[in-house]
Amino acid sequence: MRTAFYISDGTAITSEVFGHATLSMFPVEFNHQTIPFVETVKKANEIKKLIDSVAETSGEKPLVFFTFVNPELSDIILSSQGVCYDFLSYASEIVKRELKVQPVPKMHRTHSIHESSYDFRIDAVNYALANDDGANIKDYDEADIILVGVSRSGKTPTSLYLALQYGIKAANYPMTEDDLESGKLPKCLDKYKGKLFGLTIDPERLAAIRQERMANSKYASIRQCRIEVKEVEMLFKKNKTPYLNSTRYSVEEISAKIISETGLKRHKY
Amino acid sequence: MRTAFYISDGTAITSEVFGHATLSMFPVEFNHQTIPFVETVKKANEIKKLIDSVAETSGEKPLVFFTFVNPELSDIILSSQGVCYDFLSYASEIVKRELKVQPVPKMHRTHSIHESSYDFRIDAVNYALANDDGANIKDYDEADIILVGVSRSGKTPTSLYLALQYGIKAANYPMTEDDLESGKLPKCLDKYKGKLFGLTIDPERLAAIRQERMANSKYASIRQCRIEVKEVEMLFKKNKTPYLNSTRYSVEEISAKIISETGLKRHKY
Repeated sequence: MRTAFYISDGTAITSEVFGHATLSMFPVEFNHQTIPFVETVKKANEIKKLIDSVAETSGEKPLVFFTFVNPELSDIILSSQGVCYDFLSYASEIVKRELKVQPVPKMHRTHSIHESSYDFRIDAVNYALANDDGANIKDYDEADIILVGVSRSGKTPTSLYLALQYGIKAANYPMTEDDLESGKLPKCLDKYKGKLFGLTIDPERLAAIRQERMANSKYASIRQCRIEVKEVEMLFKKNKTPYLNSTRYSVEEISAKIISETGLKRHKY
Repeated sequence: MRTAFYISDGTAITSEVFGHATLSMFPVEFNHQTIPFVETVKKANEIKKLIDSVAETSGEKPLVFFTFVNPELSDIILSSQGVCYDFLSYASEIVKRELKVQPVPKMHRTHSIHESSYDFRIDAVNYALANDDGANIKDYDEADIILVGVSRSGKTPTSLYLALQYGIKAANYPMTEDDLESGKLPKCLDKYKGKLFGLTIDPERLAAIRQERMANSKYASIRQCRIEVKEVEMLFKKNKTPYLNSTRYSVEEISAKIISETGLKRHKY
């Protein structure tokens, strides 16, 4: 199996995201290896040796996606037997030409505690945890968004993703059978209609998820799931709450759709 | 201010990560605009018009980082007045030449529910929540890693990041004053020494974080923080628990260091 290396002087997350997106276009399996925090000539030389030994042992050149601030380290990796791609350098040339501004390479530009968004993101994670599952309805003034939906429709992972990635404060509130029977929004949400975003889900998928948690319960029955989903969608429509069906989407996709639909302000790009 | 667009037929997360990493090298402020789910000719033409209108109104060409599976959509964006960079195409040429395999473009390759890692990641998030803060010590057999440290040393956000990004099941357990006074690992952790990873933190930073939660308490006093940090580090050393000081690191950096040091198996790249 061909080896792909993702290498950087920081977390190597950018190398991974970029390299993985590139390789996912090919119908081929890879052996992925991430090597973060390569910050010294000594470490870079060790990695060069590792790349060379993989090339020699397997008889196939590893694919190497890398980025360094220090060009001395780049040169060491480039001198290896891998097929090396310094993926940011070509793009930064295009930007330099257009802006007529020289790049100023700095260590730990991204994914570090020095990003201005960092404290927002950690605050938002703490907020999401404290306001998960209707736990703390008195702090909704602070919420950027309040996700609503029936139990197990994807609210919690979405709240956490919005917080961790974007610094968005997302509370979430579960619509219970009592709420749904009354056909009205719970009182505690009345003041916050403009912040609500609904998640719904196919009843079959909901029943399967609930089944894993409480097998053979009324809660997990397809009949109960159908009733709840129908009622919650009616409630969303009646209150003009924007909503989306999460069944076929990942948390990344749900979050991107919510941000794009609501115009929510993000703290991180 | 120069506008930067991140555009894709999916979440546009890859466009953002790549574009942001490129632009962060320049000492310039940008107006960032992400446009996900551009899946039709009609939508692509709207976006082209938007790019053109920004170019005309501002007198400056927007920088456009984009990727599409459908080349017809790429051509529409390329015909705009932006400085457009189809950032995956150059890299995929290099890979194609080396592998001698044609790419097979597919929609929603990354960041979608169809990734094989997706269920692992959602399971891991549920696991991290159920096993946060020592909540559920009976499920440690299932843990990939158990983060230990004093209260507010960064365990919870790190557990969630490991789960959401990598599908790693991370429990976390807070070392209380009683644990520290005894100078021994809590009994419930005895069986799991090989899974423990410690987080420590500078006492000054710890006191500042605790101060925000419980101002003027013994818990937040610098004296208390110094004692706890000193004792917990002694405990880590005594038990040969690997640990790192989280003070100057982001959750991304802490997670990357933990994975790199422990060799933990990730479910997503």
